[in-house]
Amino acid sequence: MNAPANISDTAALMTAMGAAARQAAAALAASSAETRTRALVAMAEAIRAAAPDILKANAADMARASDLSPAMRDRLMLDAKRVAGIADGVAAIAAIPDPLGAVIAEWTQPNGLNFQRVRVPIGVIGIVYESRPNVTADAGALCLRSGNAAILRGGSESLESSRALHAAMVSALKAAGLPESSIQLVPTTDRAAVGAMLTGLDGALDVMIPRGGKSLVARVQSEARVPVLSHLEGLNTTYVHTKADPAKARAIVLNAKLRRTGVCGATETVLIDKAVLDTLGRDIVRDLLAAGCAVRGDAAVQALDARVTAAREEDWRTEYLDAIVAMKAVEGADEAIVHIAAHGTQHTDAILTEDASAAEDFLARVDSAIVLWNASTQFADGGEFGFGAEIGIATGKLHARGPVGAAELTTYKTKVRGSGQVRP
Amino acid sequence: MNAPANISDTAALMTAMGAAARQAAAALAASSAETRTRALVAMAEAIRAAAPDILKANAADMARASDLSPAMRDRLMLDAKRVAGIADGVAAIAAIPDPLGAVIAEWTQPNGLNFQRVRVPIGVIGIVYESRPNVTADAGALCLRSGNAAILRGGSESLESSRALHAAMVSALKAAGLPESSIQLVPTTDRAAVGAMLTGLDGALDVMIPRGGKSLVARVQSEARVPVLSHLEGLNTTYVHTKADPAKARAIVLNAKLRRTGVCGATETVLIDKAVLDTLGRDIVRDLLAAGCAVRGDAAVQALDARVTAAREEDWRTEYLDAIVAMKAVEGADEAIVHIAAHGTQHTDAILTEDASAAEDFLARVDSAIVLWNASTQFADGGEFGFGAEIGIATGKLHARGPVGAAELTTYKTKVRGSGQVRP
Repeated sequence: MNAPANISDTAALMTAMGAAARQAAAALAASSAETRTRALVAMAEAIRAAAPDILKANAADMARASDLSPAMRDRLMLDAKRVAGIADGVAAIAAIPDPLGAVIAEWTQPNGLNFQRVRVPIGVIGIVYESRPNVTADAGALCLRSGNAAILRGGSESLESSRALHAAMVSALKAAGLPESSIQLVPTTDRAAVGAMLTGLDGALDVMIPRGGKSLVARVQSEARVPVLSHLEGLNTTYVHTKADPAKARAIVLNAKLRRTGVCGATETVLIDKAVLDTLGRDIVRDLLAAGCAVRGDAAVQALDARVTAAREEDWRTEYLDAIVAMKAVEGADEAIVHIAAHGTQHTDAILTEDASAAEDFLARVDSAIVLWNASTQFADGGEFGFGAEIGIATGKLHARGPVGAAELTTYKTKVRGSGQVRP
Repeated sequence: MNAPANISDTAALMTAMGAAARQAAAALAASSAETRTRALVAMAEAIRAAAPDILKANAADMARASDLSPAMRDRLMLDAKRVAGIADGVAAIAAIPDPLGAVIAEWTQPNGLNFQRVRVPIGVIGIVYESRPNVTADAGALCLRSGNAAILRGGSESLESSRALHAAMVSALKAAGLPESSIQLVPTTDRAAVGAMLTGLDGALDVMIPRGGKSLVARVQSEARVPVLSHLEGLNTTYVHTKADPAKARAIVLNAKLRRTGVCGATETVLIDKAVLDTLGRDIVRDLLAAGCAVRGDAAVQALDARVTAAREEDWRTEYLDAIVAMKAVEGADEAIVHIAAHGTQHTDAILTEDASAAEDFLARVDSAIVLWNASTQFADGGEFGFGAEIGIATGKLHARGPVGAAELTTYKTKVRGSGQVRP
């Protein structure tokens, strides 16, 4: 890779990428759903065909990454199966219903003016991510599905892998007659490139999406001069109500905490009504312990089993992303809801109960992006929502809240059709 | 008014206002539509009843504002009719359908999980505005209609008027059993208050909305550390197509340019197809001149009438907000669309034609918040859209685009109802 020699070159490079993206965005907005689908199908095929090149590039990345942690190396590593998985992911995005042109709302005013709110692309989306090379394909394909031009800036460790993936993607864009700059990969590891994106590339960038750890998201949120769609932590709670069905509750808590502990939808805190603490509560604690989960409890939960250690105040505020759970006994739904409001992150929270009115009250009062009744918090995922793919789970309140799929990467305009109306 | 003596007092004051707003937001989210309606009806009545106090406060503001321009003084000035108008505006907001709780989308996945996307309030909205005291009532009422707590920071010139209006509004909140801090007015003219709002009041503020001139909006956009819904300029174009109906086109262009020249929906540029320049074009130019509008044209338009002056490059980029229009002859729709993309501000643009396919092509290709066919650009207004009221016209792409009414001041959450589902 020939990185520009100095920061001013990077600045010029990024400005040029922004301008190229803006031009591509106009072409994409005018393209048909069929063309975008054809490009996505071709992209999946091109990635499959380029597997040898991609694996060779990945081997070079891995060789340079010998000092990374095993977890980081695992994220970076590609093999034939993973490359096939990336291609399958792009093919799945090709199959998502095209979101553009959909009429979101339509109405006619008494003066005869007809109003139609129609989905259109946002324009140019900047995505900054870490070392997973699959994001290059994923994010690029989802932007294309929604008619947006993408500027991708991956982690420096994965640059060669991303370049090889990107080359395959560009060949598919060309084959479909779409601009190559519909999906651009920042070709330098110079950190000034991220800085340029955060300032909006001279107005070319409409939104920034950080995908990665807390420090990346925090940097983007604090420095971006363009709107940000971001994904902060998921400190999710599952609340076991007095009227919970014991068998359902035990299965759901185990799944919510332990199916995968490193995902943002994992439950971190379990609240249990005191009335069922000695019965269902003890079973849940022992299920979790038996499955290898460390349990940190308040005094009442500690009294259930000697292996429960004492939860400290910080445990109610910690996204473990590990086989650790914080458990607390509560007097009822009001206390549970207050606890969630005080300690949660408004990401995903669940109530387990057979009492419909208690459930509906919880769903109404808990102000989180996703609120569930009798289901695992691990359903917090665009795929599980039926979106086909997601670029993340938005934890902010504006524009999109929860899983961000192709439809959430669009905006709208209002078409007003008249017959000569003037405003009095 | 007793402004705190120093900036650190203002900081403490603003933090306390943020915390109070956050508490009020929780109460508002839990309140019923009926309660919010009752509060709004009471608010309109309270403003009517407080008219003498409001006028007295306004007289004090006006006395201090003797060095303001006549236009600024006119914006600041209240009389009995204007106070009645403010109360009527609040009553109109009371009559808007409540946006909260509406099911935006609902679907069920094959595993039986039911998904419901439901409208909820955003939370706490900060509004910074200039000297129009009516915004205090308008913005506060629209936030209340949508279940949001509001922190209002008006211009220093209108502080006494705003305080008197706000006192009446708070009495209505109390009477309806809602927290007084549902609508708070920043009681100091210390500019550090705006700075504190821009940093988000320790996380209490969900969104900032600037309402005012370009410099205010630019400051908020460049300094805000929270999402901003903002309203930039409307450099709107009306394009007269070859197939325009002459009578409709003449009436619409006059209205679009001159009905009110100072509103954001006013047309600033008129493009005319060369094929109708000598006929319809000349009539339009003479209509505008006869109505007192200065016409600045390219060479072809100048040739139509000696009173047309030469347009310079900057004329295609100027939001006059005055009785001045820039006019240009174009070869057809493609040139018109390219001109709009290059010079417009993606606010509101119109095509005048009897050719439906030319119209639909324009509506599809022009990427502006509002695109009109055979209607005046001055319909760019929440009231004309049927929203009952608006807090502005959003010119960004994220969250809301075009008029921002009560529904656009909401977000959503997803309720997921299961029967024991765990994720495989």
